[in-house]
Amino acid sequence: MIGCSGKKHAIVFQSDFGLKDGAVSAMKGVALSVDDELQLYDLTHEIPAYDRWEAAYRLYQVAAFWPAGTVFVSVVDPGVGTKRRSIVMKSKTGHYFVTPDNGTLTLIAENMGIDAIREIDETKNRRTASDNSYTFHGRDVYAYTAARLASGIISFEEVGKQLPDSLVRIPYQKPVFEKDSIKGTIPVLDVQYGNVWTNIHDSLFKKLHIQYGDKVDVKILHKDTVIFKNTVPYVETFGKVEEGAELGYINSLMNFSLAINMGSFSETYHVKSGNEWKIVIRKPI
Amino acid sequence: MIGCSGKKHAIVFQSDFGLKDGAVSAMKGVALSVDDELQLYDLTHEIPAYDRWEAAYRLYQVAAFWPAGTVFVSVVDPGVGTKRRSIVMKSKTGHYFVTPDNGTLTLIAENMGIDAIREIDETKNRRTASDNSYTFHGRDVYAYTAARLASGIISFEEVGKQLPDSLVRIPYQKPVFEKDSIKGTIPVLDVQYGNVWTNIHDSLFKKLHIQYGDKVDVKILHKDTVIFKNTVPYVETFGKVEEGAELGYINSLMNFSLAINMGSFSETYHVKSGNEWKIVIRKPI
Amino acid sequence: MIGCSGKKHAIVFQSDFGLKDGAVSAMKGVALSVDDELQLYDLTHEIPAYDRWEAAYRLYQVAAFWPAGTVFVSVVDPGVGTKRRSIVMKSKTGHYFVTPDNGTLTLIAENMGIDAIREIDETKNRRTASDNSYTFHGRDVYAYTAARLASGIISFEEVGKQLPDSLVRIPYQKPVFEKDSIKGTIPVLDVQYGNVWTNIHDSLFKKLHIQYGDKVDVKILHKDTVIFKNTVPYVETFGKVEEGAELGYINSLMNFSLAINMGSFSETYHVKSGNEWKIVIRKPI
Repeated sequence: MIGCSGKKHAIVFQSDFGLKDGAVSAMKGVALSVDDELQLYDLTHEIPAYDRWEAAYRLYQVAAFWPAGTVFVSVVDPGVGTKRRSIVMKSKTGHYFVTPDNGTLTLIAENMGIDAIREIDETKNRRTASDNSYTFHGRDVYAYTAARLASGIISFEEVGKQLPDSLVRIPYQKPVFEKDSIKGTIPVLDVQYGNVWTNIHDSLFKKLHIQYGDKVDVKILHKDTVIFKNTVPYVETFGKVEEGAELGYINSLMNFSLAINMGSFSETYHVKSGNEWKIVIRKPI
Repeated sequence: MIGCSGKKHAIVFQSDFGLKDGAVSAMKGVALSVDDELQLYDLTHEIPAYDRWEAAYRLYQVAAFWPAGTVFVSVVDPGVGTKRRSIVMKSKTGHYFVTPDNGTLTLIAENMGIDAIREIDETKNRRTASDNSYTFHGRDVYAYTAARLASGIISFEEVGKQLPDSLVRIPYQKPVFEKDSIKGTIPVLDVQYGNVWTNIHDSLFKKLHIQYGDKVDVKILHKDTVIFKNTVPYVETFGKVEEGAELGYINSLMNFSLAINMGSFSETYHVKSGNEWKIVIRKPI
Repeated sequence: MIGCSGKKHAIVFQSDFGLKDGAVSAMKGVALSVDDELQLYDLTHEIPAYDRWEAAYRLYQVAAFWPAGTVFVSVVDPGVGTKRRSIVMKSKTGHYFVTPDNGTLTLIAENMGIDAIREIDETKNRRTASDNSYTFHGRDVYAYTAARLASGIISFEEVGKQLPDSLVRIPYQKPVFEKDSIKGTIPVLDVQYGNVWTNIHDSLFKKLHIQYGDKVDVKILHKDTVIFKNTVPYVETFGKVEEGAELGYINSLMNFSLAINMGSFSETYHVKSGNEWKIVIRKPI
C-alpha cells in the first residue's frame, strides 16, 4: 500500500509498439488488474520495430536514474511465441528487468552487473485464460509477471527457476585506446537534436589529456569510408561555441559526443548509428 | 483514499487530440482538481481526427484488460457543442464509458453488453464557470464528470437521467460463414507492424477445420477489386515461418489476421482498413 | 504521504525532448528517487526544438486547469550549461514553475501574476555526483529540485535566494482595439485540427458588438502581405456551419479563432503562427 503500511515498486514499460493503438494501454490494464495501487510509468514506446539494440541502449540510458527495486518491462520481441526464453534479471543495483532473452539486456548486464536471472514459469506467471494467445506476451506474460513482482504477490524466487548468468548478447565493438588515439563506435543518435553519441566514456577520453577549450581531431567512418573529418573544440556545453558551430562534449551519460550548437550534426553530415559506424579521436599535434 | 480507507477507480483517457499541445494535460488537470488522489492513464491520443470508428475499435481492443470500475473517457467529438448527447454507459462488465453519443460505443456495447446509459446533466456535471466555452467538452464536461464518478463524489445515478439502451451505432459488416468459406472485413490495421486484422473471430474460424500448420486460402478485396489472393500457412505466431514470408494467425484479440514475418503485409500489398475492405478465407481444396 | 497523513503536489513535465529516447523517463526516475510517492504527469514533450515561445504558450494553455500547488517543470533550454539562471517562480495562483529563465514564463507571469521568483541554489539543489554533467539540467537540477519541492523536503524559500520580479520575457505584439477593428496576432496553431488561434480575448472581442450568428470581417497578413481576406460567420462551435465551411469562434482559452468545420483552416490557406502573422477583425458595415 502507498503511504500506509509499505510501498510498491514502480513499473516502467518500454516497447516498439508505438502509441497509436491500444497495446501499451492493454499492458497497463493487466498490471493494474493485478494490483490497482501499482505506479506505472513509461520509458519509450518508440523503439524502431524489432530493434533489440536500441531497446538495450535505452535501458542503459535510463535505468540507473530510477530507484532500486524498480521493475522494467521491455517488449521488443520479434521472436514472440517461439522458443526464446522469457526472463527476469535482477541487477546488482537491485533493479529488475522483465523481457524476452534476445539481447535486450546486453548493456544493462555490463553496466549494472547480474545478480541473478530467472526464467518465467508460464504455468504460474501468465494471465489466466491467455494460453491460446501467442502473439502478445508483453500483455499476457511480461506485464502480468512484472505486476505480481512489483506488488509483492510473488518474490523474485517465485518468478521461476534460476538460470546460469548467460544472456543472449548483441556483439558490438568496444572502444580501444591505441597510442595517441581512441577508436569507438556510434551506438545511438540523440535523435531529437541530431547529436552524435559515441561509446567512448569520459574515463577513457581523459587519457587523451584534452582540456575544456582545447581542440580534438575527429574522424567518422561508415565501414571504411570517411564521412567526416575535422578538428573541433572540446567544451562543456553547446552554448560555449557560436550558433551553427561544431563541438565535442561529454554527454549526459558521460560519453564523448558531437553536436552543432542549435543545429543537427547527424543531418548536416549524414551520420547515422550502428556497428558499421566508427569514430577515431585524438589530441591534435 | 488510496490504500487506507478505500480506493479510487482509474480513469483512462482516449482522444484524437495528439500529444503536441496541452489539451490532454488540461483534461488531466481538471480531473486532478476534482480529486488529487485519482490515478490517470491513457489509451491513445493518436486516433485520426474525427474517426469515431477507430475510437470504437481501440476501446474494444483495450477495455476488457482493465479492472471493473475503470472509467474510460473517449473524446473524438466532431459534433462538440451541438445537440449530440453526452453520456456515461455502464457495461455489464462494470466498466464506465464517458463520451459523446456518436458511435464511439458501437463495439463496446456489443462485446461487453449495456448495463445502463445515463445522459450527463450539465447543470450539475460541468466545470464551474465553463458555460461560455463551447468547443472543449472533453475538459469541461467529460474529464470533470469522469473524475467525480471515479472518486465517488457522485454515484452513477447522479450522472443524470437514465436513457433507453439505444446508442448511436456505426453500421459495419459482420462476418458470415457460407458453405465452406468465411467473409469478413478489415476493421483496423495493426499500424505499428503493418499486420492486417480481420473481424473473423477464432470461434468462427474454427468452423473451417484448419489446424496449425495447414494452409488457408485468402482473398482480399477493396470494393469489388481483388487486391490480394494467395494461399498462406496458418500458424501460431510470426516466427513459425521464414523472415519475409506471409502467414495467417489468430491475433491478440483472438481474430484471424495476416502478417509478413519481420515485414509489413499492409504496405507490401497496399491493404488498408474500413468497411470497403473485404476478406474471404476458406480451407484449400 | 498520499491519503494518510498529508499529500504530495503533482509534478507536470514539459520539454522539447520528444518521446523517442529515454530523456523524459530519466527525469521521472530522478523525481521518484527523491520521493517514490510523487505523482508525475506530462504537459507535452513535443515542443519544437528550442522553441521557448511555444513552451510559454503551452504553459499558459494548461497551468490554470491544474490545482494550486502543482509544480511544473519546463525544459526547453538551448542555453543549458551556460550562465542563464535556473529559477522557480511561484505564481499568485499558487502554482510553481521550475525552468531556465529564458522567456518560458512570459505568458504565465502575465496571466497568473508573480508571487515570487527564486534562483535555484545548485550547491544544494542538484542531483548528487552530477557536477561534471553540463548538458542535462532537466534531469540533474530541474526534476530534482521540483521533486524536493513537491514532496515537501524543501520549502519554496529553500530553493535559493529570492530574485527581483524581473524575468527574461519574449516580446510580442499585444492586441489593439482601434476605431471599429481589433488587430492581433496568431501566437499558435491548434496543430492537430488546423484551427487558427489568435491572441484576441473574448473580453476584447465583445467591443465589436458581434453576436452569435452575425458575420465578422477577417484579414490575415504575413508581414505586410494579405494571406486571407473574407467575411465569416461568428458561431458558438464548429457544427453550427456546414462541413467544409469557415467559421469564427471563441476557443477553449476564450480567444477569437478561425476554423473550417471538419477541415484545416491553416493548411487550406497556408496560415502559420508567430509574431510575423497579424490578424485584423471588425464588424462588417
